[in-house]
Amino acid sequence: MTHTSDFAALHRRGSPFLLPNAWDVASALLLAEAGFPAVGTTSLGVTASVGLPDGAGAGAELTVALAGHLVPRLPVPLTVDLEGGYGDDPALVATLAAELAEIGVAGINLEDGRADGRLRSPEQHAAIIGAVTAAAPTLFVNARTDTYWLPVGRKGPLLTHRDVKGPFLTGDGRGRDRVRETVRRLATYRDAGASGVFVPGLTEPAEIATVAKAVDLPLNILWQPGLDLGACGTAGVARVSTGSALYRSALGAALAVADAAHRSTPPPGQAVDYHGLQRLVREAGRRAPR
Amino acid sequence: MTHTSDFAALHRRGSPFLLPNAWDVASALLLAEAGFPAVGTTSLGVTASVGLPDGAGAGAELTVALAGHLVPRLPVPLTVDLEGGYGDDPALVATLAAELAEIGVAGINLEDGRADGRLRSPEQHAAIIGAVTAAAPTLFVNARTDTYWLPVGRKGPLLTHRDVKGPFLTGDGRGRDRVRETVRRLATYRDAGASGVFVPGLTEPAEIATVAKAVDLPLNILWQPGLDLGACGTAGVARVSTGSALYRSALGAALAVADAAHRSTPPPGQAVDYHGLQRLVREAGRRAPR
Repeated sequence: MTHTSDFAALHRRGSPFLLPNAWDVASALLLAEAGFPAVGTTSLGVTASVGLPDGAGAGAELTVALAGHLVPRLPVPLTVDLEGGYGDDPALVATLAAELAEIGVAGINLEDGRADGRLRSPEQHAAIIGAVTAAAPTLFVNARTDTYWLPVGRKGPLLTHRDVKGPFLTGDGRGRDRVRETVRRLATYRDAGASGVFVPGLTEPAEIATVAKAVDLPLNILWQPGLDLGACGTAGVARVSTGSALYRSALGAALAVADAAHRSTPPPGQAVDYHGLQRLVREAGRRAPR
Repeated sequence: MTHTSDFAALHRRGSPFLLPNAWDVASALLLAEAGFPAVGTTSLGVTASVGLPDGAGAGAELTVALAGHLVPRLPVPLTVDLEGGYGDDPALVATLAAELAEIGVAGINLEDGRADGRLRSPEQHAAIIGAVTAAAPTLFVNARTDTYWLPVGRKGPLLTHRDVKGPFLTGDGRGRDRVRETVRRLATYRDAGASGVFVPGLTEPAEIATVAKAVDLPLNILWQPGLDLGACGTAGVARVSTGSALYRSALGAALAVADAAHRSTPPPGQAVDYHGLQRLVREAGRRAPR
């Protein structure tokens, strides 16, 4: 069920699939039950749920633990957000990737944005990708570039990476330089062995088309409200992922329902049924080793 | 901030406070930031998030771990859902309660419903409460009875406890026998040292008034859509908690937004802002030991 080949086959240029990103076992099981053919994780959900800031690099153990809970329970392939790999040493990132492949994870995301707000050099990120694909050849390695979220070039201000990122930000300075740098990086990652490429913040159809055409690998973009999957497909996208949006929507709903309870007003939205969730978790648990 | 006295003082008969139940650090921090004066946990959220069924007793470690993450980060008192105490041995439950008090937890919930669908004898549950209050005298011990969710008496069918429970179920056979058994149990728990009493499924104003009058301890009931806090107060309630509803609403929102993304339609609800959440988690982390 979690073979990389099944997961890779979901990527068809021109006909993107929607990859929802879960933050825990229950959300992943529900998304699979709802019919999504694969599930991802979100580093924000995984770290914020235990009180750590996203991108702080403390997520490696948490991510491995979640993957260990999820893979045996989930009936669809799982791809895991590894942020930057939790370190710059290619050998260490490769060891982590091999551990995840051993667990049965189908894919990973690896980003070139660093926690200090700068982009890794493409050569450095390519070295990590190369080490990972050598150590875990079955993984679908989705190489992400943060060129649309972080300043491109040396003159940009030193922002804290995660301060400027978010699915509703598309970055400043869009233009030829940014597209050119994006293509240059993705081509480098492709040559290092990446299975797919991911450009969060890229939403402009003309820019999508340029990137998709220049880099002959499945192109992943980040969902944001208003995004049209058909138009993304026409522009050449193969995967649209939700990133942290589902977790942040979940938190928003919890706040809204708590507020409604406090005010004695009708709660918005639709809660998942207690018994159905219990059944789903129990049945999934039967697939998992004790 | 997490002193039991602060938490106990929130309980005022006739003027119930709304206790929202979080499932992770981020949801707890957001609820506190929204102004709720205390936060609880929900055993469903804690167990389902790692793929374990609620009430299966595997939640003790998870609950302690979550409390350890939460207490140093949360600016308001935390009360923890301990299910039935994860065992029937009073000494073991007391050890767990003492560990939570040591961490700085302000209160716990302890229920007399067992995972096999039967109610503990009131004497057995009272023995556990007595051991807990002796071992952890600073804790606000909220003694819960499941008389409105499980069959009262020996003739009821052997249901799996968690199969029949849920905030939208109010139990069959409401009536004098059930109210009498509820009062009998709560009085026993009060005499054993409980600080408050909790009857999920109790929503009928007349029955609330009977129970509140008969048992001179703060009475907690479970929120459900349509519940009016003013009317609950008039009937004598001191606390209304949301149980698993916020977590189940969160999951429902995640599914609805994933579906909207898949269909390229506007997402329902309001997501929490990425940057605001990061800031909140980072600031809370500064209060926590490394």
